Amino acid sequence: MRFTFPLLAIGLEVVMIVLFALFVQYETGPNTSQKPNSTELPAMDPDTSMDSYPHFQDVHVMVFAGFGFLMTFLRKYGFSGVGINLLIAALGLQWGTFIQGIFRKHGQKFQIEIQNMIHADFSAVTVLISFGAVLGKTSPIQMLIMTIIEITVFAANEFLVFEVFLASDIGESMTIHAFGAYFGLAVAGILYRSRLKEGHPNEESVYHSDMFAMIGSLFLWIFWPSFNSATASDAKKQYRAIVNTYFSLAASVVTAYACSSLLESRGKLNMVHIQNATLAGGVAVGTCADMEIPPYYAMIIGSIAGVVSVIGFKFLTPFFTTKLRIHDTCGVHNLHGLPGVIGGLASIITIALEKSDWTVVVSQAAALGSSIATALVGGLITGS
Amino acid sequence: MRFTFPLLAIGLEVVMIVLFALFVQYETGPNTSQKPNSTELPAMDPDTSMDSYPHFQDVHVMVFAGFGFLMTFLRKYGFSGVGINLLIAALGLQWGTFIQGIFRKHGQKFQIEIQNMIHADFSAVTVLISFGAVLGKTSPIQMLIMTIIEITVFAANEFLVFEVFLASDIGESMTIHAFGAYFGLAVAGILYRSRLKEGHPNEESVYHSDMFAMIGSLFLWIFWPSFNSATASDAKKQYRAIVNTYFSLAASVVTAYACSSLLESRGKLNMVHIQNATLAGGVAVGTCADMEIPPYYAMIIGSIAGVVSVIGFKFLTPFFTTKLRIHDTCGVHNLHGLPGVIGGLASIITIALEKSDWTVVVSQAAALGSSIATALVGGLITGS
Amino acid sequence: MRFTFPLLAIGLEVVMIVLFALFVQYETGPNTSQKPNSTELPAMDPDTSMDSYPHFQDVHVMVFAGFGFLMTFLRKYGFSGVGINLLIAALGLQWGTFIQGIFRKHGQKFQIEIQNMIHADFSAVTVLISFGAVLGKTSPIQMLIMTIIEITVFAANEFLVFEVFLASDIGESMTIHAFGAYFGLAVAGILYRSRLKEGHPNEESVYHSDMFAMIGSLFLWIFWPSFNSATASDAKKQYRAIVNTYFSLAASVVTAYACSSLLESRGKLNMVHIQNATLAGGVAVGTCADMEIPPYYAMIIGSIAGVVSVIGFKFLTPFFTTKLRIHDTCGVHNLHGLPGVIGGLASIITIALEKSDWTVVVSQAAALGSSIATALVGGLITGS
Repeated sequence: MRFTFPLLAIGLEVVMIVLFALFVQYETGPNTSQKPNSTELPAMDPDTSMDSYPHFQDVHVMVFAGFGFLMTFLRKYGFSGVGINLLIAALGLQWGTFIQGIFRKHGQKFQIEIQNMIHADFSAVTVLISFGAVLGKTSPIQMLIMTIIEITVFAANEFLVFEVFLASDIGESMTIHAFGAYFGLAVAGILYRSRLKEGHPNEESVYHSDMFAMIGSLFLWIFWPSFNSATASDAKKQYRAIVNTYFSLAASVVTAYACSSLLESRGKLNMVHIQNATLAGGVAVGTCADMEIPPYYAMIIGSIAGVVSVIGFKFLTPFFTTKLRIHDTCGVHNLHGLPGVIGGLASIITIALEKSDWTVVVSQAAALGSSIATALVGGLITGS
Repeated sequence: MRFTFPLLAIGLEVVMIVLFALFVQYETGPNTSQKPNSTELPAMDPDTSMDSYPHFQDVHVMVFAGFGFLMTFLRKYGFSGVGINLLIAALGLQWGTFIQGIFRKHGQKFQIEIQNMIHADFSAVTVLISFGAVLGKTSPIQMLIMTIIEITVFAANEFLVFEVFLASDIGESMTIHAFGAYFGLAVAGILYRSRLKEGHPNEESVYHSDMFAMIGSLFLWIFWPSFNSATASDAKKQYRAIVNTYFSLAASVVTAYACSSLLESRGKLNMVHIQNATLAGGVAVGTCADMEIPPYYAMIIGSIAGVVSVIGFKFLTPFFTTKLRIHDTCGVHNLHGLPGVIGGLASIITIALEKSDWTVVVSQAAALGSSIATALVGGLITGS
Repeated sequence: MRFTFPLLAIGLEVVMIVLFALFVQYETGPNTSQKPNSTELPAMDPDTSMDSYPHFQDVHVMVFAGFGFLMTFLRKYGFSGVGINLLIAALGLQWGTFIQGIFRKHGQKFQIEIQNMIHADFSAVTVLISFGAVLGKTSPIQMLIMTIIEITVFAANEFLVFEVFLASDIGESMTIHAFGAYFGLAVAGILYRSRLKEGHPNEESVYHSDMFAMIGSLFLWIFWPSFNSATASDAKKQYRAIVNTYFSLAASVVTAYACSSLLESRGKLNMVHIQNATLAGGVAVGTCADMEIPPYYAMIIGSIAGVVSVIGFKFLTPFFTTKLRIHDTCGVHNLHGLPGVIGGLASIITIALEKSDWTVVVSQAAALGSSIATALVGGLITGS
């Protein structure tokens, strides 16, 4: 199988080029339109589109530097973490651009806007989260295949959530974070081998690998307000998503530190908690970040997420490994899975308190259920 | 005292949530106002507010990645540096948001704008600077308490400088940098223990810790123009602050390298100088960055700051440790203290040359004096 | 020669200050103009100018963090890489501001806009690329001199390419990347000493130095779309440059990984390829990034660049060292030289297919030839 990886990678890139040649165009803008009386909606013009560019770049830093370095905390998997992260994301954003465009335009040609690039990066994030659960258990070949399958399932679930259920999920806590985590866990469950139980020597962090992981963690933390607000439909919602994420993250840092010190022997802070649980506030506030919730409500969500995430690392991850035979290398369940579910629940509560119309609440719950269910089914099939 | 830290941290977070519930609102924008004939000033609308967002994100990178990694240069304090930095900043920005809002609105409810988030990050920076002087000498518990006290004093001094003296300090060289440095030095003076004199083995840098510190240093260097221009009141001043900071920083790099090579044995460059003195130009130009000074004047300020900062590291820091019994772990006096004073003096000279009205010059001098005096008094009380 | 470096550095800084005092002003904006009937073109006003600021900051990250850390991959040259990088860039941006302004305004006083700062950073990049070829072979003194000479030649070639040939090179693949690489190679050829042949022990990467280099590589990768679009003349071209660079980079990652696995023993991925060849797509698409090429065409350019760059590292670099007696420390020929030439050729083909006017095609070819020729001549003279 010496040439499987290079041939598969080149083959996939050729397929991408052919698909892009057939389906992907620039946005041309209303001023170049040949049909002034056209009944089509006018395309966004580049000026409007460019407004999203700083947000896009913030998200781009998170995907490539943030997730890449966060996965370097294991001494032996530093290169795999950051190297395969780049490969997955580079392939994933191409395939994500295509498959999301096809879903949205029902199979017709479509135009690239800056927003498409943000969504393409988002689809790559989903695979990167799952990668965190299977790091050290998969080959690059398996990751190429998983990237293609997972993004396809992800785009289908996104279509269901946003187009069918018309649910709300601005920071995609349910559709990206919970989905990515449960997809990865399902794959990890299939790939479980019993010798993983007794803690592999490769699975250790050392001083420097922990410092490299802090680079990833901090850049994720810093730009999370951009992640949760990047796809907002208007300036007011974008502004609210930024403010809520900012305070939710700050609150989750304080409670995660407190909880880490409480649970560790002699009150020491645990670096894995600091690297991961401090981000839980960003995930958990994602779904309702743009809703009219007061800032203190965002801080409560963040505080809870910080505590739950540390508890997950301390008690759930060992339980998963030994009892459920699911080995979650980076603890994505604690950083993305649980906080993603918290995010979904918080949004259901928020909407239930605000609106009398129960169909909206049910849709939101359906979105959460669908994200977890398709993730588990998709992950089990992919792992097999 | 096993549970003091977690209980204090959780207690503080609960207090923050209660205070935010009572006092903090979103900006609602003029278009959602229910009282068109209201005599209140119209709130900024989200569109205008969002213009500051890229600046905010640049400052945010400086606070969390810049200051965090700059403090990792000591082999043994890498985790403390970056970990406690995150905790201080996360708590500080919440408390800073509250206390600054209360001062500005005289105790009434207030709205969050992107500018408030920039100011909240600024208040966190003040504590981070002081933290640099006491790194290795304080516990996380002490840092939580110091964060609350220092930001309160900082906000009071800011009120004095900007509302009472009506002084000018766009990059807050006096109110943040000089204040933070002298506050930290006063605390460090109180915490002095004689065994610090003979150079602790923990207080050594190694190859990799110096490289991690360069990450912090470079991101501070890169985004300093955003720091000095983030709170500018109009585009013209913002543009001038950017250009002046850009050239002042570049000049301080060249003179800091020259001075480091001149003073070190065999002309070698000293990494501590490279990590710190290259930033002195950003601090020193801060106060007059938005004034109508020609770019070459900014370059002169930067050149002087680079030289003074290296001289400070070489001669003043040992003198402080042995004679004044003040042990300044990261040398914040050379990076923030002296250049902050230079910034204040430069602004006094600039205003004196430009204007005939001496009351403005006196106000500016009062601002510098007030920043140093409240810092020293506040620090002495906090340290005790 | 103990004091040569500090005296030269301070002397150069004094020269910069004097030149800026004589020639450099702020932009004053049309609204402050005293001559409403002036026949001069109105200066850009700060509001318009500030639109480029997020792009400037992205480029600024690339220059100081990106190039700085990319050059830390050699265990022994980590400090030199990142330290001298900062010195070169800080001096280079001052000299570049001056010399580019003088060329454009034919020796008259000129105003600083954000765009000037982007161009100044670009001129620094050119020297940083050349520095990659001579790292470990030159002293700081030699680098100061090379910075001044190279940027002068660079500005002269830019004048030729854009003002005389009126050629197109938005991402400056020819004028920065190919120029910088061939200039550096010419200098490296002159500085060749035979003992470089047998692989110096200093020229080895270790785990941590490779991880630091990944920081540089990833930040370059992330912000390359900003680099290629920063100087675009209108929003539509800027948008196209962003989209094309985004997809070209993604494609070059996939093909570079495939090619690296194909050529390395036992299909392992080579970290040098991952750090460098993944960026080749950004260089190669630079010249035609803003032209009306479809996205799949950008992906083809990126795919080819990724393959060519890996082949260059594997076969050309050893050939250069042993046969041509040119020792290219960082392999800049493979990352900047070859992809820069591919970029030039791609632009010639694109223009030839689009336009019937052959003079435009010839101009573009002349721009490529001029960039390489002036670089080689300039480098040979500088090295001597």
